[in-house]
Amino acid sequence: MNRAKQRNSFGDTLPEELIKVFETADRDDHVRVVILTAEPTAPAYSIGTDISTAMADFSRPEGDTDYRDPGGQVASAIYNCRKATIAAVNGHAIGVGMTALQLPFDFRFVWEKAKLSFPFIRLGISPESTSTFLLPRLLGHSRANSLLLTGATFSPTSPLVSGLYHEIIPKREDVLPVALAFAKDIATNTSQISVAHTKGLLQHPGETNEQNHLLDSRTIKLLGTGEDAAEGALAIKERRGPRFNSPLSKNWHPWWRPVDESRPKAKL
Amino acid sequence: MNRAKQRNSFGDTLPEELIKVFETADRDDHVRVVILTAEPTAPAYSIGTDISTAMADFSRPEGDTDYRDPGGQVASAIYNCRKATIAAVNGHAIGVGMTALQLPFDFRFVWEKAKLSFPFIRLGISPESTSTFLLPRLLGHSRANSLLLTGATFSPTSPLVSGLYHEIIPKREDVLPVALAFAKDIATNTSQISVAHTKGLLQHPGETNEQNHLLDSRTIKLLGTGEDAAEGALAIKERRGPRFNSPLSKNWHPWWRPVDESRPKAKL
Amino acid sequence: MNRAKQRNSFGDTLPEELIKVFETADRDDHVRVVILTAEPTAPAYSIGTDISTAMADFSRPEGDTDYRDPGGQVASAIYNCRKATIAAVNGHAIGVGMTALQLPFDFRFVWEKAKLSFPFIRLGISPESTSTFLLPRLLGHSRANSLLLTGATFSPTSPLVSGLYHEIIPKREDVLPVALAFAKDIATNTSQISVAHTKGLLQHPGETNEQNHLLDSRTIKLLGTGEDAAEGALAIKERRGPRFNSPLSKNWHPWWRPVDESRPKAKL
Repeated sequence: MNRAKQRNSFGDTLPEELIKVFETADRDDHVRVVILTAEPTAPAYSIGTDISTAMADFSRPEGDTDYRDPGGQVASAIYNCRKATIAAVNGHAIGVGMTALQLPFDFRFVWEKAKLSFPFIRLGISPESTSTFLLPRLLGHSRANSLLLTGATFSPTSPLVSGLYHEIIPKREDVLPVALAFAKDIATNTSQISVAHTKGLLQHPGETNEQNHLLDSRTIKLLGTGEDAAEGALAIKERRGPRFNSPLSKNWHPWWRPVDESRPKAKL
Repeated sequence: MNRAKQRNSFGDTLPEELIKVFETADRDDHVRVVILTAEPTAPAYSIGTDISTAMADFSRPEGDTDYRDPGGQVASAIYNCRKATIAAVNGHAIGVGMTALQLPFDFRFVWEKAKLSFPFIRLGISPESTSTFLLPRLLGHSRANSLLLTGATFSPTSPLVSGLYHEIIPKREDVLPVALAFAKDIATNTSQISVAHTKGLLQHPGETNEQNHLLDSRTIKLLGTGEDAAEGALAIKERRGPRFNSPLSKNWHPWWRPVDESRPKAKL
Repeated sequence: MNRAKQRNSFGDTLPEELIKVFETADRDDHVRVVILTAEPTAPAYSIGTDISTAMADFSRPEGDTDYRDPGGQVASAIYNCRKATIAAVNGHAIGVGMTALQLPFDFRFVWEKAKLSFPFIRLGISPESTSTFLLPRLLGHSRANSLLLTGATFSPTSPLVSGLYHEIIPKREDVLPVALAFAKDIATNTSQISVAHTKGLLQHPGETNEQNHLLDSRTIKLLGTGEDAAEGALAIKERRGPRFNSPLSKNWHPWWRPVDESRPKAKL
């Protein structure tokens, strides 16, 4: 995010551009991992939505059920991206900077001194960007309550966010390099088909243990008879790193129906 | 709870009174936060249900499906209260003292030396007060197993309850003052409409990320065009604390149907 | 598991034997707790499925939807066992050694120096044994992502697995004795009816707080009027340990329909 002047507020073309980035990354077989970070000179990772923009947005004369929260649209694009996704949180984060720009990612890396806050109840509004779905799912409801129902500012080392971050990094300038090294390992040593189907199983599990057994039986049989599995086995036999080449675009077996959110382009 | 002599056992009029308190607090716009605590002289926060009372209760000759667990009725009244709720656990807690009197609250503050236990499987009975719903939801199933399937006594600092308590407090006499200061901040600086709708989103989320997006889009539009949101924006502009005045009774937009539990008054 | 030579790989008759053990334990009233561990001379708790076996298994010419993952069949047998179950992880664990042989258990004890890994995405396959259902349920999705979507090797003391293990034990040779002492306490001091119904409530909760209230009201009334509850109350009155004698086989009141997974015997 290169809106240092606006402290990476969530406005102008940023939402639309983020959606485009994650939709493109989802489709392009050459993309293995996506990292979102703030340019190093920015005073914050993201200070959230500019309030006057948000108020203008809310007061458009459309029907109550027609409104689509831009943060939620961005969150969905990130959540639905089948590649590994990383938020490299190299600065303070407030509001949508905590929700859409962190929660839908697979992994979050954070600067140890970042100030973090979900301030919604202190602003007379409510949590957005599907955060009431994503946050308890990530951490459980006890910690989600402590974060969403206080609106307080907290540190990455607080026990209240224990488990939210894959890694907490002492120096701000190290956040992106650490995330990049991590991403390089994923890109080099994992199968994109495996990553996509694992995310699919985690996001669309069976409702019961038994239903999940049917789903993952089918997935492991499909993947287990594929080229990447053969290469994985060969690499172990030959004691070398794997070279996974199967494109996701031709090896995708979802078991759920994609949801049409009917997002009207004009709403962003 | 002022039943020091009975070590705040869950009996007599306590269940009925608790239900009345939380149902009243839910409706009264002047109530912002509810704290439950034990009077300081009590030897325990609550030692749970008196066993002979419980046995008498179970053996009433009503049909098996007509029985309504009093702990569960209290738990539901607390869980359904739309105001911020706090359990200030200033002493030992056993059985229903751990379940109905702690789990349905938004926040739990606890004395560091409190002895805590879910003893059900050591008594030949089963966990009640919707604890098998609430505890895994708060902490995940691994910790819920460790607590409910051992019946052991543990300390608030045990890793097995990590995340259950918003704050662990060294001195017993500080538990209530710390909870009160916390409550005062919530009461002064947050919108009761925001708190109620955030609790609603957390308790009644969409089944999928997409469904939640539709729900929270609608909520943030409704709240975002309201008086509290305008006041919140103005307070920031004027660099002062907010004065949220919108009553919840006139600004409530639930998206789920309230459940009729058909609680027969006589059952308590 | 006594396949030290094969480093307890998941093959030959092991899956079938495990299913038999847990199905028998489920039915036999004399069994109170089941512990799975590796014989002390084995170089690992389990290194997972032998890859060539797995590949041969996947490539059988049966229909895609007919395949039943052997790990998932074992996981289901363990998960459905109504007795207390313990994995005593006294060595390294990889793949199905992390999934079927750990996640469906009620409790996991682990050697502090064990190396642990879910390597699926590094092998071109996908997580199996219902691990995409069980792991997020145990720990939340943030930690599940960190484990399943990296395929990395981690230690029991890593914050990424915080909460997965009931106890982490410094010396390898102490893992089984500690688990045995724990099991003995459960076997001696808890009611098997209580354990089974508590597991039932945790695995088959109500969809909402209210539905759970109806379920646990019914269960506590049924158990509360039974012999074990009377014995529990008497033991407290007489200040002695309880002697629970009610057999599970004659005191089982499930509220859900068991799932027919139509497991064809030939598939193992």
